[in-house]
Amino acid sequence: MKPSIPKGTRDFSPAEMSRRNYIFDTVRTVFRRYGYEPLETPAMENLSTLMGKYGEEGDKLLFKILNSGDFSKGANMSEENTNKLATQICEKGLRYDLTVPFARYVVQHQSEITFPFKRYQIQPVWRADRPQKGRYREFYQCDVDVVGTKSLLCEVELIQIVQDVFASLGVRVHLKINNRKILYGIAETIGCADKMIDITVAIDKLDKIGIEAVNKELLERGLTKEAIERLQPILKLEGTNREKLAQICEIIGSCETGRKGIEEVSTIFDIVEELNITLPMELDLSLARGLNYYTGAIFEVKALDYQIGSISGGGRYDDLTGIFGLPNTSGVGISFGADRIYDVLSGLELFPQDSVQNTRALFANFSEKETLESLKLLKMLRENNIAAEIYPDAAKLKKQFDYAQSKGIPHIIFIGSEEIATRTATIKNINTGEQGKVAFDDLVKYFDISK
Amino acid sequence: MKPSIPKGTRDFSPAEMSRRNYIFDTVRTVFRRYGYEPLETPAMENLSTLMGKYGEEGDKLLFKILNSGDFSKGANMSEENTNKLATQICEKGLRYDLTVPFARYVVQHQSEITFPFKRYQIQPVWRADRPQKGRYREFYQCDVDVVGTKSLLCEVELIQIVQDVFASLGVRVHLKINNRKILYGIAETIGCADKMIDITVAIDKLDKIGIEAVNKELLERGLTKEAIERLQPILKLEGTNREKLAQICEIIGSCETGRKGIEEVSTIFDIVEELNITLPMELDLSLARGLNYYTGAIFEVKALDYQIGSISGGGRYDDLTGIFGLPNTSGVGISFGADRIYDVLSGLELFPQDSVQNTRALFANFSEKETLESLKLLKMLRENNIAAEIYPDAAKLKKQFDYAQSKGIPHIIFIGSEEIATRTATIKNINTGEQGKVAFDDLVKYFDISK
Repeated sequence: MKPSIPKGTRDFSPAEMSRRNYIFDTVRTVFRRYGYEPLETPAMENLSTLMGKYGEEGDKLLFKILNSGDFSKGANMSEENTNKLATQICEKGLRYDLTVPFARYVVQHQSEITFPFKRYQIQPVWRADRPQKGRYREFYQCDVDVVGTKSLLCEVELIQIVQDVFASLGVRVHLKINNRKILYGIAETIGCADKMIDITVAIDKLDKIGIEAVNKELLERGLTKEAIERLQPILKLEGTNREKLAQICEIIGSCETGRKGIEEVSTIFDIVEELNITLPMELDLSLARGLNYYTGAIFEVKALDYQIGSISGGGRYDDLTGIFGLPNTSGVGISFGADRIYDVLSGLELFPQDSVQNTRALFANFSEKETLESLKLLKMLRENNIAAEIYPDAAKLKKQFDYAQSKGIPHIIFIGSEEIATRTATIKNINTGEQGKVAFDDLVKYFDISK
Repeated sequence: MKPSIPKGTRDFSPAEMSRRNYIFDTVRTVFRRYGYEPLETPAMENLSTLMGKYGEEGDKLLFKILNSGDFSKGANMSEENTNKLATQICEKGLRYDLTVPFARYVVQHQSEITFPFKRYQIQPVWRADRPQKGRYREFYQCDVDVVGTKSLLCEVELIQIVQDVFASLGVRVHLKINNRKILYGIAETIGCADKMIDITVAIDKLDKIGIEAVNKELLERGLTKEAIERLQPILKLEGTNREKLAQICEIIGSCETGRKGIEEVSTIFDIVEELNITLPMELDLSLARGLNYYTGAIFEVKALDYQIGSISGGGRYDDLTGIFGLPNTSGVGISFGADRIYDVLSGLELFPQDSVQNTRALFANFSEKETLESLKLLKMLRENNIAAEIYPDAAKLKKQFDYAQSKGIPHIIFIGSEEIATRTATIKNINTGEQGKVAFDDLVKYFDISK
């Protein structure tokens, strides 16, 4: 029996973990600098919390957990519709994203929370998607949200966070922005206010499938040829962000909601300009993002120097907590995709060399007697917070060297009878081959200074 | 609809997260100091990896994940044995501990690993146990293991790690130690070598249920009255660790395995003594630990000043990877129970005050014009890595104060028209009530110094 793991899942080796932790630590440090606090929710949520929140397609992608014990009790096991049967034998599911559990948390704990509530959450999510390159069934999201305020300062803050995170990581990015209210204005203006969702779903694919295919989908979704015709110039708007805003204002300005959206984006641009935020930003009227709970600003971030989908995205939702019984609690948030960011950093070789915090020294192991002296020195180093090890067996020196090499341990320390007699350690630098002597009493100082 | 989470699971609020992270960070720092490297495995494992590894009882406690899509295809849905049916409609389960996934990892990746392999792993595990006080269905384990060596230096290292972790946390503990080989020696000596498992399972409960109940259980498990009689003096051994070792050696010394166990424990005691490790250690011959894969040393750690079950435990397993096809790869490890340690630190009020890394300053929000100036100063503080916020809305000052108070933000900064004219901020210390003026240009310095 050859052991394996479920498809679409991954083990993370020590080397990968160090790199992933570099990303998580960077993101976390920025989040904290902006006053966001950590939150964690359980991997399992009640299916009633998750179902119906991600569209029909999303429901199918939920991992469901079989009820424990006699799960068939009370279930109609001859039910042939497996979707229906599933909800009879499963009460729980694995979380699909961090936003819905967050909304559930806010409602459940509303009496303990001081609003506005700024939280970040870094946890895995699970989706029964077909695994493929860059798409996993278990992956980490890093979400940052603030709920309980409609202030556009929050949108600006998220833009600053995007700038900070990617500047810290050394990745050049640009940010696309749009506003759902503008999209509504467009839908109303072309006479399809009721088809707003269909329009957003279709034009969101513009980048991927091109204008022809988008138009075809719009037709299939019930838009008239005339409406599609009227949509074309909007999708083709060009110029600076300000120019685009002026043009779209002329087209949809008679729609109040649309005008509000334009105002919101303008205000954000104003503040961003005043603050000299240098992140490249583009108003993209085809940016829609699939999720239906967005009601205001929407964001998407792409890497400039590496070909991959968006590496971050989010937006404002005015009523996400409404489905759980707490209406009128607006929020805005953005999610960083750890796996894609990992791929970008790998592809561009941007991981710092010292993202792996290595053991500094390995004591070679000769025999029991010398070992005891090594153990005492080892204890002293560790007490001074210097990471060190001893090879556990008196194996061939070659083997001990290979071990140090594979773990990237830069120094090997030899404590033989001579060293014990003179109370002086022999230290070999694995990388340079240099060898030297250091008095036992100076060992801590040596490693405090040497790199 | 009032939202809730599955029973036995928990949300962790920002305050709880900070405390939990204090524990994880402490444990992680110690693990690294001893040369252990991080590893993570997927939440889901194939059921074939998990089933049969935790006994019959454990199999029932596995959370099973319903196959996606048409799960009933190929399954006999009229199967009345729900255990059998479950394995037909579920291929995957949530991990039950970190040890079995680690063993699976080692076998699967054996060609990439340099042995001895020292890893730590801090991740949640899931068990469909009946929830009760202090027992959860989702909880975190912090495991540290080394595989690929039989060296007793590893046992000593784990003892040092226990000492270091709890010294760092400020918790006084004592460590119980025993050895499965001694337990085998006892079983053989009383004529029940074949009943070794029954004996360990029963005497492991000595602490909880007392000697009478243990003897009753031994009888039920098929031990003769004579055997139970011969066991009594062993369970009642008293004296120092060395005295106990001498006594047990007299009783079981004719059994080779038993003698080997005594030797191992003696060696560990010798080294611990030589190294002046001050952790109180007790040889406890009734310590057995339930898990059947242990073959050598077994450990258990208890808090001295707080009444709770063991807060850490582990042991040596000579053939855990054998079940996955890699025999003769001995390992030893120990697991720290984050939730119980949390309870101990809470109960003894040992969490440091500053375990919460707070926002340092909140800019009050008056009106749009002043806000822009605040935003610029805020940006400057954050660029200097000083965590700061602005209240997003121009709400009543009382509300903004309450917000700062509830988040433990110590300073409120006021930027009004006068402050802008004089380029001087007014800063109020929330705790002392003191109020002062700081020039815009000195703000960074002010927060770099002030605590």
